[in-house]
Amino acid sequence: NFQDYHGLPEFRNAIASFMGKAGGGRVKFDPSRIVMGGGATGASETVIFCLADPGDAFLIPSPYYAAFDRDLQWRTRAQIIPVHCNSSNNFQITREALEVAYKKAEESNIKVKGLIITNPSNPLGTIYDRDTLKSLVNFVNDNNIHLICDEIYSATVFKSPSFTSIAEIIEEMDHCKKELIHILSSLSKDMGLPGFRVGILYSYNDTVVSIARKMSSFGLVSSQTQHLLAAMLSDKEFVDNFLVENSKRLAKRHARFTEELEKMGITCLNSNAGLFVWMDLRKLLKDQSFESEMELWRVIINEVKLNVSPG
Amino acid sequence: NFQDYHGLPEFRNAIASFMGKAGGGRVKFDPSRIVMGGGATGASETVIFCLADPGDAFLIPSPYYAAFDRDLQWRTRAQIIPVHCNSSNNFQITREALEVAYKKAEESNIKVKGLIITNPSNPLGTIYDRDTLKSLVNFVNDNNIHLICDEIYSATVFKSPSFTSIAEIIEEMDHCKKELIHILSSLSKDMGLPGFRVGILYSYNDTVVSIARKMSSFGLVSSQTQHLLAAMLSDKEFVDNFLVENSKRLAKRHARFTEELEKMGITCLNSNAGLFVWMDLRKLLKDQSFESEMELWRVIINEVKLNVSPG
Repeated sequence: NFQDYHGLPEFRNAIASFMGKAGGGRVKFDPSRIVMGGGATGASETVIFCLADPGDAFLIPSPYYAAFDRDLQWRTRAQIIPVHCNSSNNFQITREALEVAYKKAEESNIKVKGLIITNPSNPLGTIYDRDTLKSLVNFVNDNNIHLICDEIYSATVFKSPSFTSIAEIIEEMDHCKKELIHILSSLSKDMGLPGFRVGILYSYNDTVVSIARKMSSFGLVSSQTQHLLAAMLSDKEFVDNFLVENSKRLAKRHARFTEELEKMGITCLNSNAGLFVWMDLRKLLKDQSFESEMELWRVIINEVKLNVSPG
Repeated sequence: NFQDYHGLPEFRNAIASFMGKAGGGRVKFDPSRIVMGGGATGASETVIFCLADPGDAFLIPSPYYAAFDRDLQWRTRAQIIPVHCNSSNNFQITREALEVAYKKAEESNIKVKGLIITNPSNPLGTIYDRDTLKSLVNFVNDNNIHLICDEIYSATVFKSPSFTSIAEIIEEMDHCKKELIHILSSLSKDMGLPGFRVGILYSYNDTVVSIARKMSSFGLVSSQTQHLLAAMLSDKEFVDNFLVENSKRLAKRHARFTEELEKMGITCLNSNAGLFVWMDLRKLLKDQSFESEMELWRVIINEVKLNVSPG
């Protein structure tokens, strides 16, 4: 049969309940706000299409997921403006850095439509603390722009502190324009199912939900896959065990990898989530230039045969 | 696992062989030219993104599939220019009508990038004969524009004459710029599987194949669905029986429906494919105006409770 663009009720219920679980069980998600996308790639593109005209911009703390250049810009013709974050404070985002980027865009007559964050961060593997999330919500509220929280790694947190979804933060705040808040979710990382192409846009904005749902014909989830996942995610014992085991294994590998690196004098950013390790290889550079970084990268990829992303 | 953007080899082989079968077995399709899309909707949008800049136009013989307005225009910002076809010659497309539309666009400084046809036609349910297809290929060759053939109803032909794929036509022609030819395929109609979201772009243009494949991350086919379909389509006896039985049932329903209409004095366009019946309801109109047509439509939808598309 042709699919209902809303998705199977049992699939949406299962996804909403999974998002709640991944968010630590402290907040509930409403199945009627769930819109399907063709993987997180399609879901993130869809929300940009909903919010921006060609030329409009989104702020993104750097370093950011490199494929956003493709996913968010190629077809929507929106643009990304990196917000410069510094290694000196472990790449934490500050209100000052946001204001600088926002004002600079305004001065160049570029309309900033929103701020996009990945929480847990891709590629840092760190998570945003509650105060930072609150300050981001205040920033978008003050400027009346959107906040897109890509939470596709939410269930990969493998040691404390625990993950806080933006959904929980906005429930706690007194003054929050909820219609500015959008969440991206997926089963690709949290459940290890990237081949199934399940991307979810969860929006507090009724218009975005309505428009994105109309646009979802470009990226629905196979009905067969919806049935399978509804059944799989409804098995709460299986999901609980999977997430616990997944977290344990990630912690073990992360510890092993960073400890060995440390023995060689290579330190890493202190991270607790995701599938990333942010290494500090500055010692190995001839000088502190982009060229030296690329030279080192070529040595690693050609001789060590490891594809490490420079940044 | 993450998917190879090419798709599983067995899936692509199965699709290529299915397309050959749907095309009457007279032409072979190359699995390496198959690009996955999120349903035919996604596949058709992808080829427009590949070929056109915002503002560029595509000619489409009218009446055309109404959702093309959404699928081909909304996000790509390309535009559709209808080529006026007449009931007087059963809506056949003529070289003259194409030239008129093309020149008119040129005079308005609109860049025409291609011609799109649905063969079998949605919504007419008719098929293009060989001479017409050759003349369309000549038209796009002469003007150096693209030809997109949406063949998603190719296996729904239920009585003679039989369907001819554009793939067969261009093999026979001496002078044909193959790189201008693109085919859309799907299993939604031919195999009755719209929920699986399998759309295929088959292009003779290497650059389009390469770009579309990079863009296919927005609409890959669930790996689980690829596995299932590879197995299903490889069962040649099942597919053969399905197509024969499907064709028989379509023929029976079409005959029953048009015969009953004829008893009531309503004639239909002579069609032999697809899931459509093009009725001539002019007798029931108060006068030959758009308003009368809409008035009749409202009577049918509100009182008869049938959603018939006006056109």
